[in-house]
Amino acid sequence: MAELKDLTKRSEDYSRWYNELVVKADLAEQSAVRGCMVIKPYGYAIWEKMQQTLDKMFKATGVQNAYFPLLIPKSFLCREAEHVEGFAKECAVVTHYRLKNDPDGNGVIVDPEARLEEELIVRPTSETIIWGTYKNWIQSYRDLPILCNQWANVMRWEMRTRMFLRTAEFLWQEGHTAHATAEEAEDRTVQMINVYADFAEKYMAVPVIKGVKSANERFAGALNTYTIEAMMQDGKALQSGTSHFLGQNFAKAFDVTFVNKDNKPEYVWASSWGVSTRLMGALIMTHSDDNGLVLPPHLAPIQVVIVPVSKNAEQLAEVDKVVAPIVDNLRARDISVKYDNADNKRPGFKFADYELKGVPVRLVLGARDIANGTIEVMRRDTLEKTVVPLEGIEDYVQSLLEEIQSNIFQKALKLRESMTRTVETYDEFKVEIEKGGFILAHWDGTPETEDKIKEETKATIRCIPLDGDTTPGTCMVTGKPSKQRVIFARAY
Amino acid sequence: MAELKDLTKRSEDYSRWYNELVVKADLAEQSAVRGCMVIKPYGYAIWEKMQQTLDKMFKATGVQNAYFPLLIPKSFLCREAEHVEGFAKECAVVTHYRLKNDPDGNGVIVDPEARLEEELIVRPTSETIIWGTYKNWIQSYRDLPILCNQWANVMRWEMRTRMFLRTAEFLWQEGHTAHATAEEAEDRTVQMINVYADFAEKYMAVPVIKGVKSANERFAGALNTYTIEAMMQDGKALQSGTSHFLGQNFAKAFDVTFVNKDNKPEYVWASSWGVSTRLMGALIMTHSDDNGLVLPPHLAPIQVVIVPVSKNAEQLAEVDKVVAPIVDNLRARDISVKYDNADNKRPGFKFADYELKGVPVRLVLGARDIANGTIEVMRRDTLEKTVVPLEGIEDYVQSLLEEIQSNIFQKALKLRESMTRTVETYDEFKVEIEKGGFILAHWDGTPETEDKIKEETKATIRCIPLDGDTTPGTCMVTGKPSKQRVIFARAY
Repeated sequence: MAELKDLTKRSEDYSRWYNELVVKADLAEQSAVRGCMVIKPYGYAIWEKMQQTLDKMFKATGVQNAYFPLLIPKSFLCREAEHVEGFAKECAVVTHYRLKNDPDGNGVIVDPEARLEEELIVRPTSETIIWGTYKNWIQSYRDLPILCNQWANVMRWEMRTRMFLRTAEFLWQEGHTAHATAEEAEDRTVQMINVYADFAEKYMAVPVIKGVKSANERFAGALNTYTIEAMMQDGKALQSGTSHFLGQNFAKAFDVTFVNKDNKPEYVWASSWGVSTRLMGALIMTHSDDNGLVLPPHLAPIQVVIVPVSKNAEQLAEVDKVVAPIVDNLRARDISVKYDNADNKRPGFKFADYELKGVPVRLVLGARDIANGTIEVMRRDTLEKTVVPLEGIEDYVQSLLEEIQSNIFQKALKLRESMTRTVETYDEFKVEIEKGGFILAHWDGTPETEDKIKEETKATIRCIPLDGDTTPGTCMVTGKPSKQRVIFARAY
Repeated sequence: MAELKDLTKRSEDYSRWYNELVVKADLAEQSAVRGCMVIKPYGYAIWEKMQQTLDKMFKATGVQNAYFPLLIPKSFLCREAEHVEGFAKECAVVTHYRLKNDPDGNGVIVDPEARLEEELIVRPTSETIIWGTYKNWIQSYRDLPILCNQWANVMRWEMRTRMFLRTAEFLWQEGHTAHATAEEAEDRTVQMINVYADFAEKYMAVPVIKGVKSANERFAGALNTYTIEAMMQDGKALQSGTSHFLGQNFAKAFDVTFVNKDNKPEYVWASSWGVSTRLMGALIMTHSDDNGLVLPPHLAPIQVVIVPVSKNAEQLAEVDKVVAPIVDNLRARDISVKYDNADNKRPGFKFADYELKGVPVRLVLGARDIANGTIEVMRRDTLEKTVVPLEGIEDYVQSLLEEIQSNIFQKALKLRESMTRTVETYDEFKVEIEKGGFILAHWDGTPETEDKIKEETKATIRCIPLDGDTTPGTCMVTGKPSKQRVIFARAY
């Protein structure tokens, strides 16, 4: 049962507001395993809608799903030098395959005789095991491209965790493609970042900036990492999806070659791309308010809730009768609707609960409304109440859902625009970064300057925007030439 | 690319036929990790159809999906005595959380300083972590029932593995329900075995016998295990799904109580139930033949393939034009259809490939057919070819798909019936069991007798059938009283 009160206000403590909201809205909770969360049914229902939508979008581009092993031999992880550097420091290691009764009678212990010859790593990402497999699938250019995706759990032993944003185990999808040319692989990399951006904006109603990561922030083993970056209400950035052009790095590490059209052997070109349950964090932090979740209609498990108000069973029966065809009509339009006529909770309790859970539209109907031929409509995004005619309520609700979807996107976009500033000098930058938001500034393109800025201001380069202003300038720190402004922010 | 020839015949070596078919039909392959398989896109597409169908069936009974951690603290696994006995012997144990560069320069080693205080087990099943979580969710009878399911990977360190049938890692769903009364929990247990049986028979076209397991074969920690048992073409049994009545065992192990309607604390009652990628094995072995897979239309990723035959580009263009509206019309009926007009493979190659892959219906169209207003139809189950009028082909195909679905079920049912015998004496039993199939015999209900039979004949009690003949008798081995005949078989 959700607790309806005592949600910390965003203005008091944004971080605490988020942590409380995740729990109070029944999305997730900490588990007994350090850094791992339990995703509760209501939270999982949102994730399922994300999965279904993304899965359709992937398949529309020719991608097929497959499944690769959870455990990766240690030697595989080590084949690509940068990759192992990036992932070896935070991995769960399986060393044994059996427990046994403690001969001293202290319960069950690891059986020292069941030590694995080679340790296995719980996958932090699957490039290595997948490229080890692709080696058997690829001989000729006729076997290319391969466009596989898997929905899976992965594990990274993070020291500081926050539900959805950074957890030791998380759920994600990882696409891994193999191509005959560099151009094709890079086109796929860009295509997928565009799919992610479309999904974020059209379904999550989260505006994102598409861009390229600096070398410092690149995926371990990639030549180039594309990203979508969103701004949360506290002005911090959240990296929400990435797509990597891997060049021939993994093909070389796993010796995957193909015979090209000129009958010559060549290493295969690759991309990989993923989004995770981290998107849940982006969804929650972009739209929600001090009353709880605000969900975009395109992803809300319950889009419309109908609550009856009645003084007695007779009145309730009358409301039931009027509501039944409305429910049927809404469902016929593929609108998910819940009629909550449970008699063990008061309407006020239900109102607060559905507000907390972010249900986009609430309808309230009582005997007086029926007499008047009207119904009360509350929209979660603005909390506005209106009384409208019962006749045609389905049309009204359907267009209201689209209006809410569009409104929360516009609201988030306006906030981002109002918190995005251009600065010329490093002094100015240091002042502005304290206020949060995105700062557009010139940078000389070197890791050293980026490190210095991070060190001194905790800000990182979120991306070099794809669609930004490409006017050259001079670096705010070093005065050296800059190709274009990049986006700085503090980030989750 | 599938290899089209050299599939071992079932009559030569059934086991080898299966192993080859899994690989040649592009369903799965062995991975670099011992006992773990890669599920390839074509195999995964079948599994996805199974998942989607089951998921809808579960949700129709009020079940919600959730997600619980992959790793289980060792102490959790040990709380329920029988459970740890059943699972501790075959588990992957995480002991460390970091790798580091070997100071001796030999690549990367496990960092001895990153040893976990308590070892974590890769879940072999999730009763323990879930009941550890339910403790926080349940206070009063008002919080019950809880009806959660998760789609997940699990791991059991099997010594002898076979793809889909028995692998170290496998994919499954596991439902875990919590109830206020024993009756409700047992009703749910039975409800879910009925869901599994419906799914097996209506979608997989696999006839199953519903029954109860003997104590020897019961799930570790359950009071009662229900099962569905299928017979493969070689007469061996395959346990295809189980549903467990757990009583209050896990509630007691994790101290999960609720305040009942009389305001008294009581332990919660439980069920758990699961099916896995093992179902893929059942599907393959029930229907397929010496030419390859035979897929039930209700689960086939491609239900209809259309192959053009043409002598030149002009003829092909003509066929393309005739096929286009047929494809549209079939899709409008929710029939998945592939038009394979790729010009780099000959029709004969395509025919063999789609036969191997088990596509239920093949249509072949050439210039002469168009002139005649006809089209050739081949059904995969019987390999029969017919020429039918082009006009109305969509109706023909739609009803043919249903006919195939029903035909392969009936065929499997007849085989099972022909290989099911009743025996009276143990001598007779020893002769019959060598011929394979299901043997109905009387048993005295003791584990000792069951062990003796298993020892001497390799046959186990598959189940005590729910819908079987309940006439009492005397045990074929001991002559002691028997409540009803039970089903013996050798099993996968």
